[in-house]
Amino acid sequence: MSEKAKKQLDFLILIDEMKSIYRRTLLMNRERRENDAEHSWHIALAGILLAEHCPDHIDIFRVTKMLLVHDLVEIYAGDTFCYDKAANADKELREKEAADRLFYTLPYPQSEELKTLWEEFDQMETPDSRFGAAMDRLLPFLANCHTEGATWREGAVHRASVLERLAPIEKAAPAVWEELLPMVDLCVEKGFLSA
Amino acid sequence: MSEKAKKQLDFLILIDEMKSIYRRTLLMNRERRENDAEHSWHIALAGILLAEHCPDHIDIFRVTKMLLVHDLVEIYAGDTFCYDKAANADKELREKEAADRLFYTLPYPQSEELKTLWEEFDQMETPDSRFGAAMDRLLPFLANCHTEGATWREGAVHRASVLERLAPIEKAAPAVWEELLPMVDLCVEKGFLSA
Repeated sequence: MSEKAKKQLDFLILIDEMKSIYRRTLLMNRERRENDAEHSWHIALAGILLAEHCPDHIDIFRVTKMLLVHDLVEIYAGDTFCYDKAANADKELREKEAADRLFYTLPYPQSEELKTLWEEFDQMETPDSRFGAAMDRLLPFLANCHTEGATWREGAVHRASVLERLAPIEKAAPAVWEELLPMVDLCVEKGFLSA
Repeated sequence: MSEKAKKQLDFLILIDEMKSIYRRTLLMNRERRENDAEHSWHIALAGILLAEHCPDHIDIFRVTKMLLVHDLVEIYAGDTFCYDKAANADKELREKEAADRLFYTLPYPQSEELKTLWEEFDQMETPDSRFGAAMDRLLPFLANCHTEGATWREGAVHRASVLERLAPIEKAAPAVWEELLPMVDLCVEKGFLSA
């Protein structure tokens, strides 16, 4: 057991690096960009708070685990801005290699469990992963609303792209979706987002 | 449902502030101090990875929720350094007031559920909260080991205080405890921690 614990502690030390991987999203107080570790915390808690709005049967603990690990591959693959088409072209291969390298440092079968959760999240084909993806898209949207569309403006992003990005929320959490639509319109009206 | 969702979204926006509450602990790469949001992510994942070492029956999803919310009260009460006796004297009252102010912005019964989890964690009397506390103490220890005892040295902390702080790990995760003891000795030997 002690040998297992050692590998797990080494993994916990390695993933401290998540705190130094910066995403495009600004903190809502605009102090700086958000990092992967705090983003993962925020969306995991969002999932727990909003699970009651999901009409599908989901296992919210599985979703929570997915959300806590979904960005770990960026330790080796880096962050890819969702509206950057060129960078997204080789994202899949980069992240698959990173997943093998990272998760297999854990003892079996934990390595397999986490890698499977990451793959499921990435493929977005199950109710758990679709609800998880909705959370992953919700928070950066809220951050943009609260920072005058800071990252939208950097990327000259249009309303249609944002709606496409938010689409999983409509089925995963209809009551949340209802709240979001007028917010999108308000952002366009205020000039935070291109029409 | 939409009114409920609105309150939950407002809560998610409010707690973005966790990313700007800095703790004493340094990142392992020494880049800067760690904030509450990334700390909460790290210990939640530590709990999931290390739960198999706990000899007591624990509900690891409850523990995960506790760890994700355990520091939220610091949005109003601020961070209190664990080795600062003066600041710890009025910590309880400050945090109780903060908990009422914070959790009751959520819709009932979610407000009650989260506040109860926070209280249980704080009191450290159940297997779930004792295992949670072990995780909360493990990670700052590992960070100190990897930063030449940066925060220990600032506070002139002694071996005995660190062992006292780590004590919950002995029963909550014996295999992890076995790994830690030689690390404490090594830190003393290297001068990261006073004898």
